[in-house]
Amino acid sequence: MLSQKMVELGSKKSTIREIFEFGKKRAEIVGKEKVYDFSIGNPNVPAPVSVKSAILDILENENPTSIHGYTSAQGDDNVRSTLAESINKRFGTKFTKANLYMTVGAAASINICFKALANEGDEFITFAPFFPEYKCFVEGVGGKLVIVSAKIEDFQINFDEFEKKINDKTKAVIVNSPNNPSGVVYSEETILKLVAILEQKSIEYGHAIYLISDEPYREIAYDGTDVPYLTKYYKNTFVCYSYSKSLSLPGERIGYIVVSNEMEHFTDAYAAICGGGRVLGFVNAPSLFQKVVAKCSDETADISIYEKNRNLLYEGLIKMGYKCVKPQGAFYLFPQSLEPDAKAFCEKAKEYDLLLVSGDDFGCPGHVRISYCVQTEQIINALPIFEKLAKDYKA
Amino acid sequence: MLSQKMVELGSKKSTIREIFEFGKKRAEIVGKEKVYDFSIGNPNVPAPVSVKSAILDILENENPTSIHGYTSAQGDDNVRSTLAESINKRFGTKFTKANLYMTVGAAASINICFKALANEGDEFITFAPFFPEYKCFVEGVGGKLVIVSAKIEDFQINFDEFEKKINDKTKAVIVNSPNNPSGVVYSEETILKLVAILEQKSIEYGHAIYLISDEPYREIAYDGTDVPYLTKYYKNTFVCYSYSKSLSLPGERIGYIVVSNEMEHFTDAYAAICGGGRVLGFVNAPSLFQKVVAKCSDETADISIYEKNRNLLYEGLIKMGYKCVKPQGAFYLFPQSLEPDAKAFCEKAKEYDLLLVSGDDFGCPGHVRISYCVQTEQIINALPIFEKLAKDYKA
Repeated sequence: MLSQKMVELGSKKSTIREIFEFGKKRAEIVGKEKVYDFSIGNPNVPAPVSVKSAILDILENENPTSIHGYTSAQGDDNVRSTLAESINKRFGTKFTKANLYMTVGAAASINICFKALANEGDEFITFAPFFPEYKCFVEGVGGKLVIVSAKIEDFQINFDEFEKKINDKTKAVIVNSPNNPSGVVYSEETILKLVAILEQKSIEYGHAIYLISDEPYREIAYDGTDVPYLTKYYKNTFVCYSYSKSLSLPGERIGYIVVSNEMEHFTDAYAAICGGGRVLGFVNAPSLFQKVVAKCSDETADISIYEKNRNLLYEGLIKMGYKCVKPQGAFYLFPQSLEPDAKAFCEKAKEYDLLLVSGDDFGCPGHVRISYCVQTEQIINALPIFEKLAKDYKA
Repeated sequence: MLSQKMVELGSKKSTIREIFEFGKKRAEIVGKEKVYDFSIGNPNVPAPVSVKSAILDILENENPTSIHGYTSAQGDDNVRSTLAESINKRFGTKFTKANLYMTVGAAASINICFKALANEGDEFITFAPFFPEYKCFVEGVGGKLVIVSAKIEDFQINFDEFEKKINDKTKAVIVNSPNNPSGVVYSEETILKLVAILEQKSIEYGHAIYLISDEPYREIAYDGTDVPYLTKYYKNTFVCYSYSKSLSLPGERIGYIVVSNEMEHFTDAYAAICGGGRVLGFVNAPSLFQKVVAKCSDETADISIYEKNRNLLYEGLIKMGYKCVKPQGAFYLFPQSLEPDAKAFCEKAKEYDLLLVSGDDFGCPGHVRISYCVQTEQIINALPIFEKLAKDYKA
């Protein structure tokens, strides 16, 4: 007999992936331009030209067996040193290659952290709205995901509920800022309050409560918004980074974990990350792209396009009467749905080939996620559809 | 508290990786040419030129957001169709894209199969000598690895012991042919006998016992040796393939799983594979290299170099009095160590900077693995060292 749990997880897929597949099928039938697919966070902005140059340069000047060969499990030494320097330069941290572990993208980064930390029955707390795969990963390593409900007025943290849900079994807290799906960036005030609670509770329960910062959207912040670097606020922090969004390389699966140099039992913590990666079957992060991201470490894709899209879509929707917290980062809007049941609202939108994702999937009912990492033209063409939809609800 | 199991697995590393790291350090001290590193299966033959051409062609002619974008979790449709056709052409199978699931290399392929199949307490049987990471993966998904000891006269299967160890808890059997570390290819006779037992026991216990064929070395077979394609012998077969060795791309982490079209409950079995990949944190196989392997599906690296190395090393060692089953595939020799304790023998070899891996790590004491995927010159230079070592034992 197969693992029924895996059959189920593989049959259902993530809702997002399901809508994405639906969109691809619809595009074959009605034409791509008639499908307003806002379902998936697949960056539409191409990778910067430096990515192509880096690949060509490596192919031309390096030895093929070294380009495509195994690296150490934790990643190429030079790559890790280069990335550590780049982080230090930007955030005033003091990392070396010894703090970095290269990964097969953000999903790998997060899951490796979970695997490194989890003992059977451990609890991991996250704050709605949250990336739905967290649940699948935490349960996959024998833990339990505990969800603190959303503070819907500004999508910062609902601290009262958090303090009630933290307990002796709490192993770690996962934050994701800039947030998928709300687009909100946690303020320094929020971080300070969070950290104060973690410190106090770690003392109270006599063991570290770790902080996992899932930050693939770090570079995508608007209006000069500062995204606090969490190792500077809390010693027991793991940073999970990915180049999927910053360099528009989501399919290449390349990222890293930073194990804070101030973490208690640092050597063991780094070893546990190595152990987690090993047991999950990640031998090393893709070797060519390790070298590519090192060469492009100070670059990003052209993020101004996302900001333009945000402004266009946010202002458009607000004018039509949609209610939405203005996002300062990532490439998502997370407005309230026009009926309490967000799933029913998404189904209604689907009739217009307007593909949105229900907030229920992110632990935040009554909202929908709109991924605006699409051609600006799609937004322009979709605005009248959003308006029609709004009118349907007024009628 | 961290997961102590992960700390342990991450601290110890695999023995092979440990020796590999030791070799890199020694090379910095005594010079690369003075270290005779036969520890790791890192192909020394470069990827065929078609790999570079394929990368350049894709970069030049395809859209960057599509080159580097997410693919479906199971892999790009065109890639899977192309690979299915290539397999059909070579082995007379009848696969379509629906049978293929692209993976982040062989470790991912195997671990996804384990995750797809394992319920708590399930047993997975493998035959010594075997790839040591199997244990780590099987235990990581809550199963137990049961080892059938080696048939050291020819490294085919010890069927008597196998029949004693198969029971109602047996979920699957893992075979690896051409074998790491013995280099032996299972004969058709062995396969027919294995399959007959699996069929009989599946009926006896009233549930399928799956066959997982781990075959990254399929293309590396010498002397015209035929490597049977196992879906043609047994319906409940998963084939785990990787391009690490065939195209010399070990660092790029690219491979696939074939779910046999004759498998019982096929739809569920394929879904379980998707579920396994999802829970382990594999979002999709690296996108550029999916496209590259499709373009190079009928190619291999220059395997003749391995054959030359095998002949040179095998004949050299036999002349010196080493005892060794002649391998027909892969790029390993697995001779008997010159003292019963293979670990002690490896330590002795290490004094000459001759790096071998003890057979104990492969569940087969009294033997050592020699990876001959190295420059032929290294073999020529190492032969006198092997001879010195042999003399030490005669003295």
